[in-house]
Amino acid sequence: MSGTNAGGESCERLVDLPEGFRAAGVACGIKDNPSTPDLALFVADHGIAAAGVFTSNRVCGAPVKVSRSRVPSESIRAVVINSGNANACTGERGLDDARHMTASVAELLGCDASEVLVCSTGVIGHYLPMEVIGAGIPRVVEALTGAPESFAAAARAMMTTDTREKQSFREVTGPGGAWRVSGVAKGAAMIGPNMATMLAVVMTDAPLDAETTDRFLRRAVDASFNSISVEGHTSTSDSVLLLAGGDGSLELEASSLEAISEAITAVCQDLARAIVADAEGADHLVQIDVTGLRSVEEAEWIARTVADDALVKTAITGNDPNWGRIVSCCGRTGVELVEEDITLAINGVVIYEAGTPVEYDEEALSRSMRDDAQVEIHLSFPFGESATRFWTCDLTTEYVRLNSEYTT
Amino acid sequence: MSGTNAGGESCERLVDLPEGFRAAGVACGIKDNPSTPDLALFVADHGIAAAGVFTSNRVCGAPVKVSRSRVPSESIRAVVINSGNANACTGERGLDDARHMTASVAELLGCDASEVLVCSTGVIGHYLPMEVIGAGIPRVVEALTGAPESFAAAARAMMTTDTREKQSFREVTGPGGAWRVSGVAKGAAMIGPNMATMLAVVMTDAPLDAETTDRFLRRAVDASFNSISVEGHTSTSDSVLLLAGGDGSLELEASSLEAISEAITAVCQDLARAIVADAEGADHLVQIDVTGLRSVEEAEWIARTVADDALVKTAITGNDPNWGRIVSCCGRTGVELVEEDITLAINGVVIYEAGTPVEYDEEALSRSMRDDAQVEIHLSFPFGESATRFWTCDLTTEYVRLNSEYTT
Repeated sequence: MSGTNAGGESCERLVDLPEGFRAAGVACGIKDNPSTPDLALFVADHGIAAAGVFTSNRVCGAPVKVSRSRVPSESIRAVVINSGNANACTGERGLDDARHMTASVAELLGCDASEVLVCSTGVIGHYLPMEVIGAGIPRVVEALTGAPESFAAAARAMMTTDTREKQSFREVTGPGGAWRVSGVAKGAAMIGPNMATMLAVVMTDAPLDAETTDRFLRRAVDASFNSISVEGHTSTSDSVLLLAGGDGSLELEASSLEAISEAITAVCQDLARAIVADAEGADHLVQIDVTGLRSVEEAEWIARTVADDALVKTAITGNDPNWGRIVSCCGRTGVELVEEDITLAINGVVIYEAGTPVEYDEEALSRSMRDDAQVEIHLSFPFGESATRFWTCDLTTEYVRLNSEYTT
Repeated sequence: MSGTNAGGESCERLVDLPEGFRAAGVACGIKDNPSTPDLALFVADHGIAAAGVFTSNRVCGAPVKVSRSRVPSESIRAVVINSGNANACTGERGLDDARHMTASVAELLGCDASEVLVCSTGVIGHYLPMEVIGAGIPRVVEALTGAPESFAAAARAMMTTDTREKQSFREVTGPGGAWRVSGVAKGAAMIGPNMATMLAVVMTDAPLDAETTDRFLRRAVDASFNSISVEGHTSTSDSVLLLAGGDGSLELEASSLEAISEAITAVCQDLARAIVADAEGADHLVQIDVTGLRSVEEAEWIARTVADDALVKTAITGNDPNWGRIVSCCGRTGVELVEEDITLAINGVVIYEAGTPVEYDEEALSRSMRDDAQVEIHLSFPFGESATRFWTCDLTTEYVRLNSEYTT
């Protein structure tokens, strides 16, 4: 059994799949380099519960439309994912192609097309090369195994400009047994005409029904993928899927259910942090805690405003504990507050307290921003008990270079 | 009489003041370099109508609080402005300092302190050096003249990281006479610990009452300073002031009033475009037109989302007509629409029509993005008659370098 993958670290040990799942990843020729993996498949041994959370962007890819129409479900068998082409802004033909991918997989697995989900990531506005995908699907089905090496191969086949595969694992033991939660993701990385897209598939052998699967997934996504930002652009293809299998007849105790829910959230948080840490050009992973607000919505609004602010992000790039930019962000959210309500700590050092700058060792703090694995911003207010945690990254010249270099 | 200052161009000809106004700019020693101008003064010969529009940021500078409490007014004599120090996040002492600046000016002009407005821009969280300002105020009063050279000196004394002074002028003739509108601004430029701040003062010898002055200013600001964005960060000190003088007893005809309002709006638009064109590190001035929406609010929401999007801005940096990023922005606004409702033209070339990419000469369009003075994005929808125009700039490695380089 492999260990937990810490957020932001490359995965050195192989990651297990839960019982009853198989995976595979192959290179079928969607990408320019024919040896780069670009087709991934995740399969459950029998039809199991599944749920999905998808982009809120009204311009969304064909696979989002197809998969969204099929979950939540009590019987999903597989998720097929291609990288290198997002199949977005491709109209009716794109929808036909996405449905055709699921039908091809279903035929080989001996199930209905409606039991197969599909995701695509990569360039937008181009039709899928259905000949190479049609030839690739039998090969990826053939490659399916329950081994961690196959899981890693599937993780790699989902990647676009990610520099490393992103996987996470938790094991839960309770009165009724032991269950595994395994997750895989690709990040919101954009070069040239590609869209920012994050995809994640989380699988567990815990026997959940569709309603519970849906509820646990939404809870996990709120505390993970909905709490990260690279540049605030919700893509056309963002999709997070949870498949929950095992013996559906088993009744789980409340304590086991809670532990499983927490494990699903933890796996999603690992993957979310890994996405931010691997964002294009990012030098710093930034964790933002906002506490003491009247509502979670207020806390989230402040956290998101700080996380998306170009001035805050460039200050962090320069290891500059620039409280003025952060305090000014709080003011421009529209949340009812005055300077005197704001206290700010960076990496545990209070530098602005109840509206007044505090004397501190600027050189030491700047050094810790440069050297520590992540920069921790804590904004506290005197209004109430509501809080949130959010992750982002800095804004570097490398980000601008990567995203401006492509010229048609 | 000098010519109109085109937005984005440096001001090669001197710009006149309206009748009855004097201005001056001096170096008093607030900035590190003692010969850099940092104290500006604008004075009307007698008490005249004035209005102001200020930052919506709840964290705002002391001068904003003081000036906001004094307008609209039927009797304002002067605006005193210092650069090099924003007097923001400075508590009660900051408020006292701001009031003291106005009292010092008032004493020399022989008016009440409440007839003097004040603006400050520069580093935040530091107290004003009141000794050097106290010594500078008599000198700037002494330097007052109605000559365009003095107006230019005042424009320079407001600058922080602006690379050029920003002035604009219009003349209106109507049945009742001829009136001048003269404006001056400093841009939203940020280096190191400085905040983004834009300040503008517009003066006219047209005889408007305070209510009309306030109404004309709000109309102008909506179509100018509220329609520009560099990185979407509303600063702690943004202030736009309009002083309207002349013989208050004169009754203006409706057509003259309308022409004066239009001239005030045109001057504000010149200054707003000049601010965006002179934004830190900007290579491209970008004009965004959004037409065919159900409400102006919808059009503005789409324009602002495109203007603030890091992916769109970096694509423009690379002269890349990347329709996918712009179309995806439309989708993520939350405005009710589908792909098929979106038509996009860049520099007059339609590249995405009713949800479908259009064949066009990519090389020629990229070349025009590189060579033309501004990039023009036009998003059109089939929903209604509401429209908006917005200006922004691109996002360059130079912007990131300028804003991350400073380290405490």
